Amino acid sequence: MNKKIQIGKKILSANEEYARENRKVFTEHHLPCFNLISSPGSGKTSILAKTIGDLKGKLTAAVIEGDIATELDAQRIRSAGAAAIQINTDGACHLTAAQVNSALQKLPLNDLDLVFIENVGNLVCPSAFELGEDSKIVVLSVAEGDDKPLKYPGIFSKSKVMLINKIDLLEGPAKDDFDVEKVKADARKLNPNIEIFCVSAKTGKGMNEWYDWLLRVTAKTA
Amino acid sequence: MNKKIQIGKKILSANEEYARENRKVFTEHHLPCFNLISSPGSGKTSILAKTIGDLKGKLTAAVIEGDIATELDAQRIRSAGAAAIQINTDGACHLTAAQVNSALQKLPLNDLDLVFIENVGNLVCPSAFELGEDSKIVVLSVAEGDDKPLKYPGIFSKSKVMLINKIDLLEGPAKDDFDVEKVKADARKLNPNIEIFCVSAKTGKGMNEWYDWLLRVTAKTA
Repeated sequence: MNKKIQIGKKILSANEEYARENRKVFTEHHLPCFNLISSPGSGKTSILAKTIGDLKGKLTAAVIEGDIATELDAQRIRSAGAAAIQINTDGACHLTAAQVNSALQKLPLNDLDLVFIENVGNLVCPSAFELGEDSKIVVLSVAEGDDKPLKYPGIFSKSKVMLINKIDLLEGPAKDDFDVEKVKADARKLNPNIEIFCVSAKTGKGMNEWYDWLLRVTAKTA
Repeated sequence: MNKKIQIGKKILSANEEYARENRKVFTEHHLPCFNLISSPGSGKTSILAKTIGDLKGKLTAAVIEGDIATELDAQRIRSAGAAAIQINTDGACHLTAAQVNSALQKLPLNDLDLVFIENVGNLVCPSAFELGEDSKIVVLSVAEGDDKPLKYPGIFSKSKVMLINKIDLLEGPAKDDFDVEKVKADARKLNPNIEIFCVSAKTGKGMNEWYDWLLRVTAKTA
């Protein structure tokens, strides 16, 4: 029993060492780094692609894409105009700091203002693995229901920002299925300082507030 | 390195022993058991609550609910009229066979036709842990996007059934965002015999085909 726990700790601290290494790289390059975490299909890639396209000329970002399989997400990011490195975890449910470390070596760090990490779609496991990021950003789609902060408290407690995505659905027949104010209140109970933006990557609604925050935070760190 | 692998195997086989034990319980009681797996918010609980309500008098099911936190899902199932045992995993990303074993001891097994297990909302980890079920059922909401079978192949390969939920959204502005035929084709490439039902737990559309299948399969096993 003891042996299991010790080995668990060893794995975690090997990850911590890489995370520390990544943090050093980000600091040396004055690069903020955000780790996006959400359920599959909440719209992480859509938000990033829209953000990259809309902020062209104002902000040069790169994306480290984590997926179990396929290059689909990296291709979408490249089509939007940013550098993207795809990591395939081959079944693993989260990115590790070592994987991010190897991706960082392939990015033109001196030419960037910002690095996004898009973690594997999973509202649970990725929140336990530090990657060296400045902050975590949790994305929640309104289609997922308004009980998620209470049912998955870990990631909502640890995130600096919550993006409530697909708010365009609230104009359709799903408008009574998701109580935005309840979600905000539940998230703030877990995390009083969490920044919250309601957005639709599809229609663009609410994206400007998110962009303002991003530009402000990026300027501060640079 | 070897030590890690051996311990990993040991954990897995402790789970296998409980899974075998659970399988024995299900066989002795002529009880089919389905393990529902999906992303958070795809509608597992809504589908189960609607199914239980609509099949009242025809099928007596119980639900073992897996969640990281809260009793919310078990309460919804009880309101729909079925027995429900809530397991809180306290941060863990999947149910274990041992947890299911202890829940089984609290259910009136002789009075049931069927046991559903609703796993923790996670499209990755739960697929690796056998719980003693007859079959896995994967639920995919149309709001999650039509790239999910390719990006998360594990669970789509292992499931006997795929429920494509929230098809009511395809009548709204999201109708062009999800290609049902592509999802069916991608799932069948991974798993040629997968049964597929397109449903809306909200409007009831398509639920009858799923009920017919459920009644047929339950009668066969009983």
